[in-house]
Amino acid sequence: MPTTIIGVDVHDVRFPTAAAGDGSDALNRGDYSATYVQLRTDSEVTGSGLTFTNGRGNEITCAAVRALAGHVEGRTVEDLFAEPVAFSRALTADVQLRWLGPEKGVIAMAAGALINAAWDLRARLAGKPMWRLLAELPASELVASVDFGHITDALTPGEALELLEKAAPGYDERLALLERDGFPAYTTSVGWLGYPDEKVRTLTRAAVADGWTAVKMKVGGPIEDDVRRAGIIREEIGPGRLLMMDANQVWDVDEAIANMGRLAPANPYWIEEPTHADDVLGHAKIARAVRELTDGRCRVATGEVAANRVIFKQLFQTGAIGTCQVDACRVAGVNEVLATLLMAAKFGVPVCPHAGGVGLCEYVQHLSIFDFLRLGTTLEHRMIEYVDHLHEHFTDPVLVRGGRYRLPTKPGYSVELRPESVATYSFPDGSAWS
Amino acid sequence: MPTTIIGVDVHDVRFPTAAAGDGSDALNRGDYSATYVQLRTDSEVTGSGLTFTNGRGNEITCAAVRALAGHVEGRTVEDLFAEPVAFSRALTADVQLRWLGPEKGVIAMAAGALINAAWDLRARLAGKPMWRLLAELPASELVASVDFGHITDALTPGEALELLEKAAPGYDERLALLERDGFPAYTTSVGWLGYPDEKVRTLTRAAVADGWTAVKMKVGGPIEDDVRRAGIIREEIGPGRLLMMDANQVWDVDEAIANMGRLAPANPYWIEEPTHADDVLGHAKIARAVRELTDGRCRVATGEVAANRVIFKQLFQTGAIGTCQVDACRVAGVNEVLATLLMAAKFGVPVCPHAGGVGLCEYVQHLSIFDFLRLGTTLEHRMIEYVDHLHEHFTDPVLVRGGRYRLPTKPGYSVELRPESVATYSFPDGSAWS
Repeated sequence: MPTTIIGVDVHDVRFPTAAAGDGSDALNRGDYSATYVQLRTDSEVTGSGLTFTNGRGNEITCAAVRALAGHVEGRTVEDLFAEPVAFSRALTADVQLRWLGPEKGVIAMAAGALINAAWDLRARLAGKPMWRLLAELPASELVASVDFGHITDALTPGEALELLEKAAPGYDERLALLERDGFPAYTTSVGWLGYPDEKVRTLTRAAVADGWTAVKMKVGGPIEDDVRRAGIIREEIGPGRLLMMDANQVWDVDEAIANMGRLAPANPYWIEEPTHADDVLGHAKIARAVRELTDGRCRVATGEVAANRVIFKQLFQTGAIGTCQVDACRVAGVNEVLATLLMAAKFGVPVCPHAGGVGLCEYVQHLSIFDFLRLGTTLEHRMIEYVDHLHEHFTDPVLVRGGRYRLPTKPGYSVELRPESVATYSFPDGSAWS
Repeated sequence: MPTTIIGVDVHDVRFPTAAAGDGSDALNRGDYSATYVQLRTDSEVTGSGLTFTNGRGNEITCAAVRALAGHVEGRTVEDLFAEPVAFSRALTADVQLRWLGPEKGVIAMAAGALINAAWDLRARLAGKPMWRLLAELPASELVASVDFGHITDALTPGEALELLEKAAPGYDERLALLERDGFPAYTTSVGWLGYPDEKVRTLTRAAVADGWTAVKMKVGGPIEDDVRRAGIIREEIGPGRLLMMDANQVWDVDEAIANMGRLAPANPYWIEEPTHADDVLGHAKIARAVRELTDGRCRVATGEVAANRVIFKQLFQTGAIGTCQVDACRVAGVNEVLATLLMAAKFGVPVCPHAGGVGLCEYVQHLSIFDFLRLGTTLEHRMIEYVDHLHEHFTDPVLVRGGRYRLPTKPGYSVELRPESVATYSFPDGSAWS
């Protein structure tokens, strides 16, 4: 019996995090929020998706979801996934709404929430966690889910199929490994720009005690402060653990290169978003310079606001990125993430998805697990970002122990919010706001 | 006496153009619409700005304008323009709203409408048409209006100042020339994809009779159809007039190169948006191929949905574009257009701004006139797009005669809508919709 989507509910959910300085970086400071989408069906199963925003403006992405909702309302899940590219293009290339992107920003984020909700629904109906649903799909169906429009000069469907087939051996061993050890993670909770030095030191020490072997700090403030904080963290983690740095796009290209010269003594593993996210050539120039500055030890990471597969394509083509940080709901959902994972595999770039925010850890664990099982085949250079915020609001929160994500076991994509959290934090009428 | 902005009115104005096939291209088909902004002040002068959208979804850009409106409400015009980059960054780098772009799509378009409205207000208070206000500003003030963030690797403030100073001689002669002859234009009204062959032929013949020396057609349908329509238009315009082609992003990179091989016999002057707007490297590859295919006669044009100065920077750095088609309200308004015009001048790329839609002709005439007077200094390869739609709704519509724009003479940026048009076409309550 097909399952029909009979309605799309959109909730403007905002958590008042700004006051604590959590999540503060060189460019963003806000209330972690979610444009939260639920697909009601004619069965008792509901599909949930969300896109992460920063507080004010969440009403804009909510409006965009409503504008796109007509493409799923009244459709059956079976129909949508019988022609997955037709489905994703209905949202990404709507003849009137595409103009508002195209394929970027608000409109792509809204498409992402809806497309992810549809995949969540499919996984729940199948009784599988999202990673397992994806990992058990035939290669041909995975390839058929990808919109190759505008990326065939970098990856063809035939090449995608080959990549999947080549990675097939060892699946059972990889799955057994993950079930035993979990997936490696790193923490971003130690070094937000809003934290004073002593808090950074205390949190870093605690992270080491908790078993973390990789930590990330924010940079992009006055360079003297960045250098001092990097020194504190390196002192606490010792020479063996990884230190990642995240500039959140504040630097100009040549400024990034100069500042990395100052920060290189702290032995960073990567510099994340060293300049404007749209600057493919700038990232490529910085990547070359940073490799030279560090004898190849430091790489450029980016992707959390990379708008779509076309930007990722160019980042890969130019060798601009050494770590691909695709976001689960910045691009147009699972289908566009698949395009990006396939290109990353072809270009040999490891994927460490962007997380934190609201629900991003819940989302991306599924993507990293799938990627390891079906494409990446190694854990080398693979880690899932972890931030210890707001997990308590989810019905199936991530489980991270000793610096590793445990495999999700419940059906779905793990971003269903608790009904009481939706009620309390709905803006502007929830009790947290009124 | 300073003028204070006491309120921001946002109107969702939509014209039901979809039915006629006007404006139909390979990717867009909608109702030409405007997110229309009016800045009320404590004087009788009002500032008007708009961003162009395609019908459904106009409520999303309206919501975005409302979210950003706090950055201008309660401010004086004098304050805003005393620190123009602080003003533009308040909108483009709002710590919560930037995440929704960043600097692209809905949020950039909303910033553009508001920033343009502030410039319109300033021009009206000065009693000057926008082109004259800009053209009479000292070079130092023009440079101080540009956000050089993330473009200093391509253009520094010092270089910008030099460009303006180098272009200063001959201003009076250039102005006299424009006052006498007007500014060259081309028409896009002959070859929309929705038009049958005979309508294309009739419109082209009429355009030639009206004095047009350059016409643009849409391509990106079945290539046989494109080739046939190109033949019809070339037949009608003869060998001496220019034929431009616009693919509206539908082709993949290698497909664009193959198709231009088929279309080259019609001797196109440019191919516009041959592939995805974000694909800087793809445009560069196509530009090289097309130059080779046509012995250098055909160039790549793009920019109508180029998101911001960082994308333009890369298009210039890679030699990807031969014609810069910046849009007046896709990027964050006048300030970001100035950044783009300055980079175009440095890289020697002529600017032919994107127009059509609603109010875009009204807007961009001011930009082209300014560019010629202060930066470009020649009319060679410069034309303003013209589409004969919806001008009757503006209080100061463009005046185009014999294929040339006449200089606007009324104060402001020319995008004030007639109050009766706003009332009639307001969505969903205006009489055109209800």
